Amino acid sequence: MTVKVYGTAYGSPKRVVACLVEKGIEFEAVPIDLFKGEHKTPDFLKKQPFGFLPVVEDGDFTLFESRAIMRYYAEKYKNQGTDLLGKTLEERGLVEQWLDVEATSYHPPIYDLVVQSLFAPKMGIPQDPKVIQESEAKLAKIFDIYEERLAKSKYLAGDFFSLADLSHLPFTHYLFFKGVGKEHLIRDRKHVSAWWDDISSRPSWKFVLEHHPYPSF
Amino acid sequence: MTVKVYGTAYGSPKRVVACLVEKGIEFEAVPIDLFKGEHKTPDFLKKQPFGFLPVVEDGDFTLFESRAIMRYYAEKYKNQGTDLLGKTLEERGLVEQWLDVEATSYHPPIYDLVVQSLFAPKMGIPQDPKVIQESEAKLAKIFDIYEERLAKSKYLAGDFFSLADLSHLPFTHYLFFKGVGKEHLIRDRKHVSAWWDDISSRPSWKFVLEHHPYPSF
Repeated sequence: MTVKVYGTAYGSPKRVVACLVEKGIEFEAVPIDLFKGEHKTPDFLKKQPFGFLPVVEDGDFTLFESRAIMRYYAEKYKNQGTDLLGKTLEERGLVEQWLDVEATSYHPPIYDLVVQSLFAPKMGIPQDPKVIQESEAKLAKIFDIYEERLAKSKYLAGDFFSLADLSHLPFTHYLFFKGVGKEHLIRDRKHVSAWWDDISSRPSWKFVLEHHPYPSF
Repeated sequence: MTVKVYGTAYGSPKRVVACLVEKGIEFEAVPIDLFKGEHKTPDFLKKQPFGFLPVVEDGDFTLFESRAIMRYYAEKYKNQGTDLLGKTLEERGLVEQWLDVEATSYHPPIYDLVVQSLFAPKMGIPQDPKVIQESEAKLAKIFDIYEERLAKSKYLAGDFFSLADLSHLPFTHYLFFKGVGKEHLIRDRKHVSAWWDDISSRPSWKFVLEHHPYPSF
């Protein structure tokens, strides 16, 4: 049964795609156009009641929330492809810790920054410079903590690439977009910069960029 | 080795306490006073660089992020006490899905509501009625989705109590505080109300309220 992934043009579904590629799991992309409101149709809301991306359908099993989907496939195919969860319970604990940092501390400001910088102009909504400024300040503080962490270990959860790192890829990539222009947040920090070059040059991420490109802004 | 849990007077660490009680794991509480800034001391920041609660220390293993800590103990002691992760990979997937909904959709507005309603006045910061109003509106929409879900299954992830339900306890409890007064968000919805009565009457939650009370407001 091929896994169906909805909305792979956008940020959060790209987490799932990169994870499936790392695990060597076949999947099929189902396009969703946010700008046409295709995530708010009654049919889509039956799959995902919040109207958020992504959703996966795997036979008769439906799952949403990108990080929950990644955990499911990383566990189900633990011994296939890249191990993304760590080898011990303690390593898994640290993967979960940094994955939660990404979800609850990192994602909200980077999401606000991207929405304000890229999506608002495309949708004819006025930008709020205060939100952009505050989001950047929050991200700078978080990257300072990452810099300290990545001075001690190659990846966030330890010396192994994991879901914690992978989960940062799709939105961090937006920092380099012309309309966002915040790559200095990465480049001003030696260890963060090396970490970014490492994780963003993985074949799984290159596959995402080539086969599931971002919408044009 | 007894597990040390920092800051059990506050919301997020109460998730960890309730989880440890459900699992029958002994622990020791280490008080932290947020109002005295004890979460921003150099010693505390060595344990938790963001200055957030909770942190646990378990021998020489340190872990932060309440939901990561719960996952660690729920997995480590899978066969002891209440199983909080589901029996199959698919059940675990749904636990993770609703736990991520709690973390990324439910927690931000309820946190803002609680901080504005209770913490701001206590700290002499002016309340922002717009934030209170917007947070309540966001929560109402989420509870509408929960209501639909809980009409179909007794708990969020299915017909079993899990981390997904447990994770809602500490901040939902605040809705009933005099200074917040938003219990109607629960009581206006039949299935949400029954779910709340069920999960908040568990011995683990009663233990939390009795032995690790909230700060007084």
